[in-house]
Amino acid sequence: MPMEGSILLDHGAGGKASAELVGGLFAKHLGNEVLGQMDDAAVLPRPTGRLAVSTDSFVVDPIFFPGGDIGSLAVHGTVNDVAMRGATPLYLTVGFVLEEGLAIADLERVVASMAAAAKEAGVKVVAGDTKVVGRGQADKLFINTTGIGVIPEGLTLGAAQAKPGDAVLVSGTVGDHGVTIMASREGLGLDAPIASDSAPLNHLAAGLIKACPGLRTLRDPTRGGLATALNEIAALSGISIELDEAAIPIDPAVGGVCELLGLDPLYLANEGKLICIVDSEQAPAALNAMRADAHGKGAAIIGRCGGERAGRVWINTSVGGRRILDMLSGEPLPRIC
Amino acid sequence: MPMEGSILLDHGAGGKASAELVGGLFAKHLGNEVLGQMDDAAVLPRPTGRLAVSTDSFVVDPIFFPGGDIGSLAVHGTVNDVAMRGATPLYLTVGFVLEEGLAIADLERVVASMAAAAKEAGVKVVAGDTKVVGRGQADKLFINTTGIGVIPEGLTLGAAQAKPGDAVLVSGTVGDHGVTIMASREGLGLDAPIASDSAPLNHLAAGLIKACPGLRTLRDPTRGGLATALNEIAALSGISIELDEAAIPIDPAVGGVCELLGLDPLYLANEGKLICIVDSEQAPAALNAMRADAHGKGAAIIGRCGGERAGRVWINTSVGGRRILDMLSGEPLPRIC
Repeated sequence: MPMEGSILLDHGAGGKASAELVGGLFAKHLGNEVLGQMDDAAVLPRPTGRLAVSTDSFVVDPIFFPGGDIGSLAVHGTVNDVAMRGATPLYLTVGFVLEEGLAIADLERVVASMAAAAKEAGVKVVAGDTKVVGRGQADKLFINTTGIGVIPEGLTLGAAQAKPGDAVLVSGTVGDHGVTIMASREGLGLDAPIASDSAPLNHLAAGLIKACPGLRTLRDPTRGGLATALNEIAALSGISIELDEAAIPIDPAVGGVCELLGLDPLYLANEGKLICIVDSEQAPAALNAMRADAHGKGAAIIGRCGGERAGRVWINTSVGGRRILDMLSGEPLPRIC
Repeated sequence: MPMEGSILLDHGAGGKASAELVGGLFAKHLGNEVLGQMDDAAVLPRPTGRLAVSTDSFVVDPIFFPGGDIGSLAVHGTVNDVAMRGATPLYLTVGFVLEEGLAIADLERVVASMAAAAKEAGVKVVAGDTKVVGRGQADKLFINTTGIGVIPEGLTLGAAQAKPGDAVLVSGTVGDHGVTIMASREGLGLDAPIASDSAPLNHLAAGLIKACPGLRTLRDPTRGGLATALNEIAALSGISIELDEAAIPIDPAVGGVCELLGLDPLYLANEGKLICIVDSEQAPAALNAMRADAHGKGAAIIGRCGGERAGRVWINTSVGGRRILDMLSGEPLPRIC
């Protein structure tokens, strides 16, 4: 039976109404034997390896959009960050900040979506918290997720591991999430078949790790997009990166809407794509491993790492030019995730 | 050199302004070798035992109050939740949601306060995230902290472990935090010397664990106060609890302000107190262990656990009566933590 009505300040006060919300809604969708401990902190078995830990707050506007919602996004975003270090994501914590007056039906839709996303990714929600603020003190709801995963013995992936000569790949089209949110928010009523790419990438990452002993870096290009993530890798690894613009996969509908809105897809957030940097000899194996996964069908080799001009990202444009591809600067897209 | 100006939407967009905020402010105060990895997720050594994990979002209003601020509170609250399971808190993640226009000087004051609180508690901030929302879409700033600790072999503390015959103790005066926030918010301009009790309780908890092999339950009575936390313990342990009202420590100034505002200190949030349930033979040892700690000087034995009417909490009043002490219901105190 779905809960009716709206969120009241009572629901965050730690008393009976809070307990009803936890029991009637959160436990119903997210419940498991750990969350059921209902204690100050969850107790989890001793992990079998090093931990990867990541945290993200989600404030996306609108909260429901083509391809997902703030709930699935909050699971995917954190699962993916943990998976980018080579870890198997195991546990999530979830913290809600709710605005008084939020429809409980909307909250339940978000929580059910989190549950489905967590199931697909294979992670358990082990701890949660809910706060309620007055009308106008938050916008509908914000979600923080923190993820914990375990890294297999001997594996070292990171943004500082790329080497000159390595190949640069991306797992599919870029810009889909960012442009979908912008178009939804502006109420453009576009007919264009665009949707967020929000998806869990941990299974794709596991496939890559298995296929490529020469894997150096996995990174999901979220806020700031492909361009910003590659700049971060170039800076942390002390290398340069050269991209071939024509090789970067861009969905034609996304490209069209970007032109209309004056946006560059290389700077738009992705929520279901990863950058893979790998020993160039293993680039074909990496490409095959990605394409074998449902979330990597559009994978492509898009460039290579160099040893000179460390920290720079260059792009060979489709019209035969060459320019620096800098980090995102100005023109923010607020509340994109 | 403190950063000047106000938070802009740019500071949350994942590009250059975000990088400046992270480098210039967060790293300056919270930096360590793990946070310095600047990767999607932090990598941490394999833990030496079971994990305790807790998450909390902090939305307290006002953000600065006598005895603390939202930053120290966000560290203490989560450190304490982890410590209540008997764990040594090791790591924190921090997620900020900032309102456009927040003074950067205020943010820096909060972050510096978090750093000092983390240092006192002995925990490292290993991962962080910052989002910025537009003016009027949040109220100044919200902070989520998630804590990870390690539980020593063989130790099982929890709200379900209390047994009939056990003694119930509290580590000091109750209601201080809640009444301070209410008084600050209402701008009462009270002369009363009241202040939040916000403090890290992990060292106090460690002392209790060492002193009392018969320790069953530690719980910090935050939202909902002492009364609600004891009801939760009674329900989860399947016991009853009987309190002696006269034995419950209440600061006279806090008691006075509570009367003025019509508040019951037993239902007000505490942020630096714990409930301890222990084999009654070890109650004196527990009392000594608490009083030996700077944050437990006002500890007292306040009641005992019984086997009948499981789930009920009774209080023997100072005037010789006996009544049921229920969970908090209605009359919420929003944004108390």
